[in-house]
Amino acid sequence: MSTRVLKAMPLDRETFSPYGDVIETDGAAQFGINAGTIRRFHDLATVDVGEAPPARVAISITRSLQCITLPYRIPLLERHPLGSQAFFPLDHEPVLIVVASPGNKVSPGDVKAFLTNGRQGFNYHRGVWHLPLITLKVAQEMLVIDREGPGNNCEEFIFAGDELVLDL
Amino acid sequence: MSTRVLKAMPLDRETFSPYGDVIETDGAAQFGINAGTIRRFHDLATVDVGEAPPARVAISITRSLQCITLPYRIPLLERHPLGSQAFFPLDHEPVLIVVASPGNKVSPGDVKAFLTNGRQGFNYHRGVWHLPLITLKVAQEMLVIDREGPGNNCEEFIFAGDELVLDL
Repeated sequence: MSTRVLKAMPLDRETFSPYGDVIETDGAAQFGINAGTIRRFHDLATVDVGEAPPARVAISITRSLQCITLPYRIPLLERHPLGSQAFFPLDHEPVLIVVASPGNKVSPGDVKAFLTNGRQGFNYHRGVWHLPLITLKVAQEMLVIDREGPGNNCEEFIFAGDELVLDL
Repeated sequence: MSTRVLKAMPLDRETFSPYGDVIETDGAAQFGINAGTIRRFHDLATVDVGEAPPARVAISITRSLQCITLPYRIPLLERHPLGSQAFFPLDHEPVLIVVASPGNKVSPGDVKAFLTNGRQGFNYHRGVWHLPLITLKVAQEMLVIDREGPGNNCEEFIFAGDELVLDL
């Protein structure tokens, strides 16, 4: 089995669009609110949790206890068939993202990696394969906006060996 | 007409609970995810946008172009009858919050003010009167999670004069 080294590219809205939304002000539509004292960069991501109720949207925070080192063997991807999942960094730290197109299987050749600039959030569309959250530093915090509700909302695709290694 | 000086108190989950959720890790329920590498402080706030569709949850960013100075005359409060509205600071800056209980009118004696610690987000429950977003510095950014959809989702209660002045 050959190993593919997956190089992360800078995250940008257009390249990421098949997988989800980039939550950033650069290049976003905006308008004034509150008598012009505030700019609102509006509707940067849609939260999709299917039928509500029984589902609802919850806001959570994650904090990393361990970080990864590069190169990093990608052990698996996961997907959430019932809803989107958004992350926004609370510490201005870059975040590595790995995604693959929806479908029942993941082809290693279809996997892509991105690195955020520390001010970008991202929202995986429902069903998009992605690497479970990893961080490059310990104690990195992220705001998470995703689905809370009944049903199995996490599926995994496990790589057998070293098919994919992530690097910068 | 007498003027009431409203002193902001530190934001805490219990005191704020009649008005909404405090989005912070301190004191929150948590569990491990991703093989124990990440702590998840789960479900810190519920996003409530009523029937979806036609409503949906959108993620936006606000940036202040102007800031206020203290003491600050409170000109009005607003409320969103169709959905909750969550804010999370992206710059670790404290934020002033002014709220009043749901109801058709606002009584100046019922209004309360809070100051966040710079790491706290907050989620106004549907229908809770609140001061439109103000900031103590220019270019402060906030992540906003609220409702996108048809219908009039903003009502205002305008104070006639200097009934309420906000200060620290």
